[in-house]
Amino acid sequence: MTTTRFRHVRQRTLELCAGLSAEDMLLQSMPDASPAKWHLAHTSWFFEQFVLGRDPAFRPRDPAWNYLFNSYYQSVGPMHARPQRGLLSRPSLDEVRDYRHYIDDAVSNLLSRHDDPELAALVELGLQHEQQHQELLLTDIKHAFWSNPLQPAYRTPIAPTVANTVPLRFVDGNEGIVEVGHRGEGFAFDNETPRHRSLLHPHALANRLVTNAEYRAFVREGGYREPGLWLSDGWATVQREGWQHPLYWQDDLASEFTLAGVRALDPHEPACHLSYYEAEAFARWAGARLPTEAEWESAAQGVAIDGNLQDEQRFQPRAASAGEGLLQLYGDVWEWTASPYVSYPGFRPLPGSLGEYNGKFMCGQWVLRGGSCVTPREHLRASYRNFFPPHARWQFAGLRLGQDR
Amino acid sequence: MTTTRFRHVRQRTLELCAGLSAEDMLLQSMPDASPAKWHLAHTSWFFEQFVLGRDPAFRPRDPAWNYLFNSYYQSVGPMHARPQRGLLSRPSLDEVRDYRHYIDDAVSNLLSRHDDPELAALVELGLQHEQQHQELLLTDIKHAFWSNPLQPAYRTPIAPTVANTVPLRFVDGNEGIVEVGHRGEGFAFDNETPRHRSLLHPHALANRLVTNAEYRAFVREGGYREPGLWLSDGWATVQREGWQHPLYWQDDLASEFTLAGVRALDPHEPACHLSYYEAEAFARWAGARLPTEAEWESAAQGVAIDGNLQDEQRFQPRAASAGEGLLQLYGDVWEWTASPYVSYPGFRPLPGSLGEYNGKFMCGQWVLRGGSCVTPREHLRASYRNFFPPHARWQFAGLRLGQDR
Amino acid sequence: MTTTRFRHVRQRTLELCAGLSAEDMLLQSMPDASPAKWHLAHTSWFFEQFVLGRDPAFRPRDPAWNYLFNSYYQSVGPMHARPQRGLLSRPSLDEVRDYRHYIDDAVSNLLSRHDDPELAALVELGLQHEQQHQELLLTDIKHAFWSNPLQPAYRTPIAPTVANTVPLRFVDGNEGIVEVGHRGEGFAFDNETPRHRSLLHPHALANRLVTNAEYRAFVREGGYREPGLWLSDGWATVQREGWQHPLYWQDDLASEFTLAGVRALDPHEPACHLSYYEAEAFARWAGARLPTEAEWESAAQGVAIDGNLQDEQRFQPRAASAGEGLLQLYGDVWEWTASPYVSYPGFRPLPGSLGEYNGKFMCGQWVLRGGSCVTPREHLRASYRNFFPPHARWQFAGLRLGQDR
Amino acid sequence: MTTTRFRHVRQRTLELCAGLSAEDMLLQSMPDASPAKWHLAHTSWFFEQFVLGRDPAFRPRDPAWNYLFNSYYQSVGPMHARPQRGLLSRPSLDEVRDYRHYIDDAVSNLLSRHDDPELAALVELGLQHEQQHQELLLTDIKHAFWSNPLQPAYRTPIAPTVANTVPLRFVDGNEGIVEVGHRGEGFAFDNETPRHRSLLHPHALANRLVTNAEYRAFVREGGYREPGLWLSDGWATVQREGWQHPLYWQDDLASEFTLAGVRALDPHEPACHLSYYEAEAFARWAGARLPTEAEWESAAQGVAIDGNLQDEQRFQPRAASAGEGLLQLYGDVWEWTASPYVSYPGFRPLPGSLGEYNGKFMCGQWVLRGGSCVTPREHLRASYRNFFPPHARWQFAGLRLGQDR
Ligand SMILES: [Fe+3]
Ligand SMILES: [Fe+3]
Ligand SMILES: [Fe+3]
Ligand SMILES: [Fe+3]
Repeated sequence: MTTTRFRHVRQRTLELCAGLSAEDMLLQSMPDASPAKWHLAHTSWFFEQFVLGRDPAFRPRDPAWNYLFNSYYQSVGPMHARPQRGLLSRPSLDEVRDYRHYIDDAVSNLLSRHDDPELAALVELGLQHEQQHQELLLTDIKHAFWSNPLQPAYRTPIAPTVANTVPLRFVDGNEGIVEVGHRGEGFAFDNETPRHRSLLHPHALANRLVTNAEYRAFVREGGYREPGLWLSDGWATVQREGWQHPLYWQDDLASEFTLAGVRALDPHEPACHLSYYEAEAFARWAGARLPTEAEWESAAQGVAIDGNLQDEQRFQPRAASAGEGLLQLYGDVWEWTASPYVSYPGFRPLPGSLGEYNGKFMCGQWVLRGGSCVTPREHLRASYRNFFPPHARWQFAGLRLGQDR
Repeated sequence: MTTTRFRHVRQRTLELCAGLSAEDMLLQSMPDASPAKWHLAHTSWFFEQFVLGRDPAFRPRDPAWNYLFNSYYQSVGPMHARPQRGLLSRPSLDEVRDYRHYIDDAVSNLLSRHDDPELAALVELGLQHEQQHQELLLTDIKHAFWSNPLQPAYRTPIAPTVANTVPLRFVDGNEGIVEVGHRGEGFAFDNETPRHRSLLHPHALANRLVTNAEYRAFVREGGYREPGLWLSDGWATVQREGWQHPLYWQDDLASEFTLAGVRALDPHEPACHLSYYEAEAFARWAGARLPTEAEWESAAQGVAIDGNLQDEQRFQPRAASAGEGLLQLYGDVWEWTASPYVSYPGFRPLPGSLGEYNGKFMCGQWVLRGGSCVTPREHLRASYRNFFPPHARWQFAGLRLGQDR
Repeated sequence: MTTTRFRHVRQRTLELCAGLSAEDMLLQSMPDASPAKWHLAHTSWFFEQFVLGRDPAFRPRDPAWNYLFNSYYQSVGPMHARPQRGLLSRPSLDEVRDYRHYIDDAVSNLLSRHDDPELAALVELGLQHEQQHQELLLTDIKHAFWSNPLQPAYRTPIAPTVANTVPLRFVDGNEGIVEVGHRGEGFAFDNETPRHRSLLHPHALANRLVTNAEYRAFVREGGYREPGLWLSDGWATVQREGWQHPLYWQDDLASEFTLAGVRALDPHEPACHLSYYEAEAFARWAGARLPTEAEWESAAQGVAIDGNLQDEQRFQPRAASAGEGLLQLYGDVWEWTASPYVSYPGFRPLPGSLGEYNGKFMCGQWVLRGGSCVTPREHLRASYRNFFPPHARWQFAGLRLGQDR
Repeated sequence: MTTTRFRHVRQRTLELCAGLSAEDMLLQSMPDASPAKWHLAHTSWFFEQFVLGRDPAFRPRDPAWNYLFNSYYQSVGPMHARPQRGLLSRPSLDEVRDYRHYIDDAVSNLLSRHDDPELAALVELGLQHEQQHQELLLTDIKHAFWSNPLQPAYRTPIAPTVANTVPLRFVDGNEGIVEVGHRGEGFAFDNETPRHRSLLHPHALANRLVTNAEYRAFVREGGYREPGLWLSDGWATVQREGWQHPLYWQDDLASEFTLAGVRALDPHEPACHLSYYEAEAFARWAGARLPTEAEWESAAQGVAIDGNLQDEQRFQPRAASAGEGLLQLYGDVWEWTASPYVSYPGFRPLPGSLGEYNGKFMCGQWVLRGGSCVTPREHLRASYRNFFPPHARWQFAGLRLGQDR
């Protein structure tokens, strides 16, 4: 852990806001999403609470902000109601930027004064947390801009991709007892531990992600009108919400809203902004199933972390390039798995308030794997577990097919 | 109608926003309230739609904005959903200010080219509309700032007022047939017409508004815990919402949130931010009743329009000054009346889309009279009818007692 | 007041339940409606609470039932939640019938022992209350049966009526100051008092009720798709609820659900089961308006109380028979008026808990006049004021047109 | 499969209704529960739809009832809305009883005419289905009676149990690869298949269920006020619903509502009517965890199916009797497990509409094992998987502690 990395990651968050006005950064278009300004402040609060709280000399910028920027840590104290984050015109964006500098200086200063592995670990946790919020900042601003009838663009037009789709092929996966979970070198979240044995049944995984063209065929053939394809809760959601296609598609099934505004739907790009319900229904329609998280992780172990990630600054999935083996494992879209998000055998949450980071959400959510086009490369690992409720659609999430052998 | 007045009223709206940032002006803290920026845009849209639409040479700044800034005129076309006005970071505040200038120039230009009474009447309607939104802009920003746990101030501290309360006295009102409604000189809204005969029963009106000290006695003596004092709907609202005192009071009954931030509750100032339910329950508790709108109007006819109005720039009710007759008729707080908001005998709404301005709201609301500390003086008349649903509390609304004789 | 009348009215309620099973009588199809069994019990409770409570020797059948069968009298004590009345399988129907007998005997006994005018007045109030619930029992069972996909019939088929519609004619009403309200002889509810002067403006009233054929023309000409015809709240309700025709009409506009099951829509019968919103929109579409309650009452004074009332046991509106003057003033359908339900000048509610009977509902409701085909004849008066919220449709309510002269 | 068994199981359902009136059997106290009469009809419909539909000579009693008594089989056709099952006073209880006889005769007749294994398998499925509804009938009537302020009793008083609690002991479970799932002899639901290998990590299971006394200690020590003990969704539910103790406990923590009415809380009886949230929070508080379903099943394989089951007709959990090994594995209360309800590797739903029986609910629910005091003995197996959403409390559900070794 060096101060350089700290500065770099923190700076990256600000860069993502380069094209946004103070007004844009106040938008909260639904309770699940947060304003960009709030992300800026909350990630700083995280360092204040969990790193700088260890420094007796540290003076908070404003003690009242603790209430505003605590997200969900009940053991830290009460917090501002989540659906009302968009009502915080004060502190202003300028004040929040100052707050970031204030925290940055304090953390850098602390790092320079101590060579403390525990401190370094907490700073690293803060940076991993920061990177998660970088991704959320982008998914949230995408939803906010889409909610404006003018549908403004966050970025310049996105280059078209290759004109062909790699043929679908199923690749046999490992069988029998494998090891999954974080091995214990480098950073990992508590929910990736402990590393443990898992039993894989005979199976195969698709060599690439499901494409827009494939998903559009499902739509055109009546996928959203056939209850037999859906989980019961999924069908109820389709009916209640009037879903007829993925979140950002337009009704003509020919164009979609992207971070660059409305754009023709690229048939070769991976289908994106799907809920678990939609991913699972598509898989059933396709005569396949979703992979389990252990199947995915076992296949991903040893594969280099490369792909269409945040670092590419495309911020939009990309068609697969021809190649051997499993393509698009990392990046493009998070892959919904068949695994509910539960603890690993022998799981112990982090001590203290940080124990609230992951463990208390182990109910009613499903695991996604592999990162997306808005995930930083250095944030990912084969053991990384993302999780969302089955109805969530605003993340860059799609699917890879799996099947029994 | 001169261009001078047009420029003056339009300028006044901008002045009210002087201390607000672009972020502040995007806030929408509840569906009933609108962002200040939206008020700026909508009032300009009103001129575009109802004045400039008459000019074949006029080119809209952006035709898509018609959808964004139409409030509720169904016959004009579909409109952006009211609860989502706070999601319009675009157009930006700067663009909206430019839009205002663009409209200002176009209207001024049109006025200078034609000496057309019908045009002048429409511009006057637009200015009266603008003044209504000036008041709403202030009540809405007050609610938005109160919704922020930091409870920021919109303005500098408010000077304390006189230290005494004028003794309560009941003044006999007129009896028998009186004339009410607008007489036909000068501007009036359609809902104030036609002038017509009304039959007044023997009654008296209090010489001043109910004070904070009086209302606090009601609270302390259990007013909010005694269902027998309330209308059935009012009691249900008290229970459901957990009301224990007026909207902006703090639980200690000793301080309140104002446009200048939190401030000690002045016992002599009129009680404010009451719903109809609270005003009506207080009157019952006090052994009195609310005045009817005809009683109020008959008493107010011939009284000069003077008082603690927007022009004072106090933006907070003020204790009554000693004097004869009915004090505080205009300004301070809107006075809830015992009259449901319905049409006058022979009422005809304005022709065309402007007929949607007032008439379609004649259900489920109650009439308030007299203006408040945020109403412009030249906006008021004895015949002026304001109206809100019985649960609305975020307006500067209070009461004057009445009684049968 | 004789015991005979008491026995007669009480017996009538039971007769209305003759064709209903214990299961039918437990149905509560919406919070606004109550099970028939609950009506049987509550009306007995009313005598227990307000009549027998005066007799020190009286012993309640079961003190716990006070909680179950109190409707809304907060000053009497807490009460069972209204939407859960359908969950009271116990006490059983047989027990409730026994309870009625027990109360009947106690009241009869009390009446026979005392010649007390105050007691007689309370018993009379209890009987008038009973008659109101007779009407509700029928409207509620109609809604409950309609909610069953089998749409069972409460009664035997209803005879068709005359084949012609009486031509529509407007009859001039009284002008100037009239007296309305109860004169003080015989029973009246507190809300009909005091009798007072009212000022009528020049107007005329239609000679008969609006018919199904007339209302169907409104539907066919797009009445439910044209926002300009509706109050703002009405249009919101139409959209939210998907209203396309009156409550019990079928989508073919050719048949309707009645207490005798589904039946061809009779074009000559009065339109029925309209909300205030629908009645008001129809009147606007027809270039007319609703009458005020004073206009109606002034016209009805001196007219014999006759018509298609509960006593006819038709339980369905009937086409007007040819005749002079205002036809169908009493019976068939309650007539929505243009008058919000508020207190008369000088109104004083009954003392004690009975003051909760009417007064606390004077907010958010509109007055209806004239009774319906399920109202007992001897329950009506020219001064009788019924009231319901503007969205209520399950009562036998329609309209008569009025207009300014 | 013999007709004897068919008659016996069908008869048992009617016997469970012996003390219920037609009114009782119409009660639906929440959307999750159904009226007893509906259970009687739906279980008959199940035979009609899935067994008698195979007999070309069969004539439905009333084709309209297909709509009324279809529960959730979308591929069979549209269905009556679940929350409105309590509105079906028609068909009457007598008609539903007749319907049962009609179906019973038709099935018996069919069985006597054919010796068809496929037919026998469908009849067996219908009987297993019937037994599930026997249990639901009891849990639903318990909730309905509890919803009545009189809290009536379904049955005669329940005998007290032994006066001591068996000491808590943890018993080591199997480790490594085990086989779970139905072995293929005798009946099983599709969700219990295929039998497959599962990897167990070192663990131990408590020898008995958690008792009322133990759970009460959790309550008294502030369990419902400490967010750190709860899953995030669980804490939100506790707050929103105001939970302070298990569903049927009274606030004094000394008595509870049972099928025999209110009764002193027996400290030795297993804690019951817990949601998954409560079971999971208790386990955390106790420094333990819930067992996985594979851990449970592996331990239960080979254990005789015996215990406090429906056959005992106690209908209330019972204190454990001293003994070796794992006590109370079957009966008393369903045991919440740490396993989300998902498909087994290689799962294939039943073909046709029966595929909707189990598979479509594999989202958002948790597995429970072991049956309860209202489950028929012959309905259970070691591989039996029950499932409910984490907030469900109205089932007889509790927990056994597990721990890592
Ligand atoms: Fe965070
Ligand atoms: Fe406006
Ligand atoms: Fe009543
Ligand atoms: Fe079933």
